[in-house]
Amino acid sequence: MSEKLTIVKVGGAVVEDEAQLQQLLADFIAIEGPKMLVHGGGRRATKVAERLGIETKMVEGRRITDASMLEVVTMVYGGLVNKHIVAALQALGADAIGLTGADGDIIRSVKRPPVSVVGGAPVSVVGGSPADIIDFGFVGDVKTANGAKMAHFIAGGMIPVVAPLTHDGQGNLLNTNADTMAQTTATAMAAEGYDVTLIYAFEKAGVLADASDETSVISTITPKDFERLKADGTISGGMLPKIENALAAVRAGVKRVVITNARAIGKGGGTVITLGNE
Amino acid sequence: MSEKLTIVKVGGAVVEDEAQLQQLLADFIAIEGPKMLVHGGGRRATKVAERLGIETKMVEGRRITDASMLEVVTMVYGGLVNKHIVAALQALGADAIGLTGADGDIIRSVKRPPVSVVGGAPVSVVGGSPADIIDFGFVGDVKTANGAKMAHFIAGGMIPVVAPLTHDGQGNLLNTNADTMAQTTATAMAAEGYDVTLIYAFEKAGVLADASDETSVISTITPKDFERLKADGTISGGMLPKIENALAAVRAGVKRVVITNARAIGKGGGTVITLGNE
Repeated sequence: MSEKLTIVKVGGAVVEDEAQLQQLLADFIAIEGPKMLVHGGGRRATKVAERLGIETKMVEGRRITDASMLEVVTMVYGGLVNKHIVAALQALGADAIGLTGADGDIIRSVKRPPVSVVGGAPVSVVGGSPADIIDFGFVGDVKTANGAKMAHFIAGGMIPVVAPLTHDGQGNLLNTNADTMAQTTATAMAAEGYDVTLIYAFEKAGVLADASDETSVISTITPKDFERLKADGTISGGMLPKIENALAAVRAGVKRVVITNARAIGKGGGTVITLGNE
Repeated sequence: MSEKLTIVKVGGAVVEDEAQLQQLLADFIAIEGPKMLVHGGGRRATKVAERLGIETKMVEGRRITDASMLEVVTMVYGGLVNKHIVAALQALGADAIGLTGADGDIIRSVKRPPVSVVGGAPVSVVGGSPADIIDFGFVGDVKTANGAKMAHFIAGGMIPVVAPLTHDGQGNLLNTNADTMAQTTATAMAAEGYDVTLIYAFEKAGVLADASDETSVISTITPKDFERLKADGTISGGMLPKIENALAAVRAGVKRVVITNARAIGKGGGTVITLGNE
């Protein structure tokens, strides 16, 4: 029987609210067995950029990362947010270690070429009119994750805390979507033989059938369900790439993906993404 | 025979000049066997602080670290500088991993109490007039270093790259002198059984008998030499704590400490600090 591993991805809204963060970390360390945390930090980056007089530009919810903004996210994700979480976990007796994709070469990416943005998700293009084509700048699309290296940290009794930054192997750091990093990490650890549960913690109770009703959590979503929920408009916007990531993870061997409220970590509930009878 | 380990400490002036940094890293990875890098970054922190409208206050060459400045050094040392070095080493094929003292709990410190500053070095005081007493703020004096944990990274084929930040085990990061961190790290690794060489790389050719003459490098300094050179004023200012750190390291089991030019890493030369016949 393979060893259980829990990977929690937590977004900026939670990590940037000290009370919420402390609660989340306490719930997180109460989870039995090896675990990893993947975090965001976009709101904090936006604030620091503003104080530095650097304008934040977003397209379809994603940050345009020019050279100045890359410095900001390197400072905020890799320094301020990551080290704050690590020190907070250490204070709780959990042996955390902060990592970007560059550290130990755990996650490599390639700089995203200019893309067309359609329906919230960037899509590679050949041709297209210049107005439709967006250069996201120093943004990385994940290529490889080194599960063996991450397992080495876990074997040393540590809890990897991963910031949403990767590198291209040529000396460049790249801003990388934290949901994608969590999915890639989970997939790599499944390939290492772990029985992986990936939890996306966010501000809602799960995927909701009715956005205005927190009790309308959809308990399970299979690929077939997803097609239907997408077609009828129940699932839209930022939830689409999250569920696409989750489905990619379970297709690649991750045992289960749970989308749930950050306050419900380790307490059951939320939406479980599975392959069903596919 | 114990395994050789080389630890290089490099200051802000070198890591913040891209050409010098690249040369240093190339020379560094050419050193045979396991190695570690400890870096500074103070000038960069001062620049970022200035852009954020935060005033930099120094007393006897040491930074006063209030809450705002702690955020700056966490961003700059732990994020910007550390991750830039890690990505650059990865590009050279060296499997670097960036760490602060909080990561893997490798170096713990205690917040420095208000101290009296005498002759360039902070000294703990009982009493004293308020004008003489300086509160350095969120500055850490190193208590413990975890050599076994650092050895775990080295056993995994990695090169630890250590930023000058520690933690107090209660959730607080603390700004910490990079020379001291290098000395503490070297001492901890010597206690792990490594044959440790600690190299302090800086902008001069070594400890100079005549500050205006780069060829006047003192080749060896023993504790007895140090007392004499201190008494006759040959060694003064910022060089005093550097040599005191070096002597503390060799007394604690580090094989040799070398103070040399950053351009001379791995090429011999510089000043060797040893116990002599003490």
